[in-house]
Amino acid sequence: MPADDIPVSDRPGYLIAPDPEAPRLTRAVEGTDHEGRAQTIAVVEERPLTIYLNGQEIVTAMTIGDYPDLLALGFLRNQGMLRDGETVTGVDHDDDLDVVVVRTDRPTNHEEKLARKTRTSGCAVGTVFGDMMEGLEALTLPPAEIRTSWLYALAERINTTPSLYLGAGAIHGTVLCQGDRPLVYMEDVGRHNAVDKVAGWMLSTGTGPADKILYTTGRLTSEMVIKCAHMGIPALVSRSGFTAWGVEIARQVDLTLIGRMRGRRFVCLSGEHRLIRDADPAGASSDRPRRSADHG
Amino acid sequence: MPADDIPVSDRPGYLIAPDPEAPRLTRAVEGTDHEGRAQTIAVVEERPLTIYLNGQEIVTAMTIGDYPDLLALGFLRNQGMLRDGETVTGVDHDDDLDVVVVRTDRPTNHEEKLARKTRTSGCAVGTVFGDMMEGLEALTLPPAEIRTSWLYALAERINTTPSLYLGAGAIHGTVLCQGDRPLVYMEDVGRHNAVDKVAGWMLSTGTGPADKILYTTGRLTSEMVIKCAHMGIPALVSRSGFTAWGVEIARQVDLTLIGRMRGRRFVCLSGEHRLIRDADPAGASSDRPRRSADHG
Repeated sequence: MPADDIPVSDRPGYLIAPDPEAPRLTRAVEGTDHEGRAQTIAVVEERPLTIYLNGQEIVTAMTIGDYPDLLALGFLRNQGMLRDGETVTGVDHDDDLDVVVVRTDRPTNHEEKLARKTRTSGCAVGTVFGDMMEGLEALTLPPAEIRTSWLYALAERINTTPSLYLGAGAIHGTVLCQGDRPLVYMEDVGRHNAVDKVAGWMLSTGTGPADKILYTTGRLTSEMVIKCAHMGIPALVSRSGFTAWGVEIARQVDLTLIGRMRGRRFVCLSGEHRLIRDADPAGASSDRPRRSADHG
Repeated sequence: MPADDIPVSDRPGYLIAPDPEAPRLTRAVEGTDHEGRAQTIAVVEERPLTIYLNGQEIVTAMTIGDYPDLLALGFLRNQGMLRDGETVTGVDHDDDLDVVVVRTDRPTNHEEKLARKTRTSGCAVGTVFGDMMEGLEALTLPPAEIRTSWLYALAERINTTPSLYLGAGAIHGTVLCQGDRPLVYMEDVGRHNAVDKVAGWMLSTGTGPADKILYTTGRLTSEMVIKCAHMGIPALVSRSGFTAWGVEIARQVDLTLIGRMRGRRFVCLSGEHRLIRDADPAGASSDRPRRSADHG
C-alpha cells in the first residue's frame, strides 16, 4: 500500500531502515592495528552495478548493493531518462553479472541524452550536466507546511537509528520523511546513490512527494538540490552547510532549504514561507548522531 | 622548484594550504534562523567548470573554482587521458566561460575512451569505469618507509589547519605529504576533485610520488584507492573506514592502506610491510579535527 494511504499517527516506524547486520553488506577483512596486532574488521561491500535501460547500457554505479532495482529506477528517473507517463514493465537484476535492466513499454528518448558530450564529474553522478538542469526551468515545487517540531523530531529519530555507516566521518544517507516520521532511510557509499534509491522506492510504490521532506547527510550541493527538485519534494534538510549554487537553484524552484541543523539551530536559505515555527526550540535534543556497530 | 629538491628539514610549512578567507571562494547569502531572525552566512561557491582536452569537450566538473588549471590536468591524468610521455603545451582557463582547455603537442587517444558506453556513477567522478581499472593490472607501487610517527604528526598538523570546509560534516580534502610534512592541501565540494587537483599540481611541478603519502578525508573507497595508485603514491591514509573493494584493489597494487586513524589508533589492511612503528602511540594527540571559520 502506498505510504500516503496510512494516517501518520498509525505509522509506528520506518518502512525501510538500514540493516547493519545484513550479511551481504559487509565482509570481514584481516589486517593489523597501530601496535602491530592482528585485527579482523568488517568493511562495507562496494560493487559495480551496471544499469541498462531497455537495450542500452547507461552507467556503472558503485553501490553497497542492497537495493539494485530501486537504485536503477531512481537513477534513471533522476537523470530524466524515465519520465512521468513512461510505463516501467520490468526490472531484472542479474546478481551474478551485477547488471540490472529496466524495461519500458516503449523506447525512451535517452539515446539523445547519451549522445551528449557533457558529463558531470565531482562528487556527483556520471550525469549529463545539461540533463540535470533541464526541466528545472518549468519546475516549481508545491506549497506545504514544514513544522519545526517535525524537523527536531526527525533529526532525533534519524540520528538514533542504527545504521550501516561505520567508522569516523559523515553518514552517507538520505531519509524520506512525512511529518515527523522517517519513512525510508537509504544509505550507500555515495550520497547520490542513496537519494536515487529513495526516488526508486517512491516510483515503485507510487508514493507522492508533495507532503514529504528529504533529510540528508552531507553538504547541500547543487546536485542534491536538483535531485530533490526532480523528485518533487518541497523540502531538503541537512546538518551540513550549503553551496552558493545549491541555494540559487533552490530559490529558483522554490524549494525549502534548511541546513546547518544541529540541536535547535538551523539556517533556512530558501522557501522560508513553508516554515511553521511551532516548536519550543529548547526542546530539541540529540545534537550529534550516535555511532553504532563498529564496522570498517 | 620541485618539492623533492628541498630537504625536508628546511621546509617550514605547506606549499599550498586552504585559504578560507579568499573572497572568491565564498559568497554571503541571507536567510533566517530557527527563531525567524535574519541571518547572513557565507556559503561555499560551487561552479561548473568544463574541461577540454585539445578540441574535445571532456566533462563538466562542479568545483569551488580555486585551481581550475590543476583540476583539469589532474582529472585528465587520473582518467588515463594524459599519460606519461605526453607533453602538455598549455592550459588555458577562460574565467568568463568557466572553461579550461588542456593542450598537448600531439593528439591523445582519448576519443576511444569517449566512445565507451560505460560511465561510473555513485559518489564518483563521471569516469569511464573500464578506464579507471585499466592500467592497474600492470601497476605495482614502489617500496617506501612509512613511519607511524609521521602519520601522527601529519594528522595533528592537518587537523589543526584552518580550512574552507565549514559547518558540520566531513572535511572534503586531500593532502599530499612527505615524511611528517603536509605539502599541498586541496579542498573541494567533492573529494575526487581535491585528489585531482593534487595530481594536477604534481604534474605541473614535476613532483614525484614515490616518497609521498596521501592523506584524505572520507571513506577509502575503490575510487580513492584507484586514483592514489594511478598517481603512483604508495600510501593512502584516512580517519574514516574502508570498502571491501577498495581493500582488494589496494592489495592488488600493493598500496599501504591505513584507515580509521584516530589519535594513536589505526587499522592497516594492505601494504603493512612499509610500516615502521617508530612512534610512541601514547604521544599521538588531537583526536578530532578542529573547525575554524563559520561558513555555511
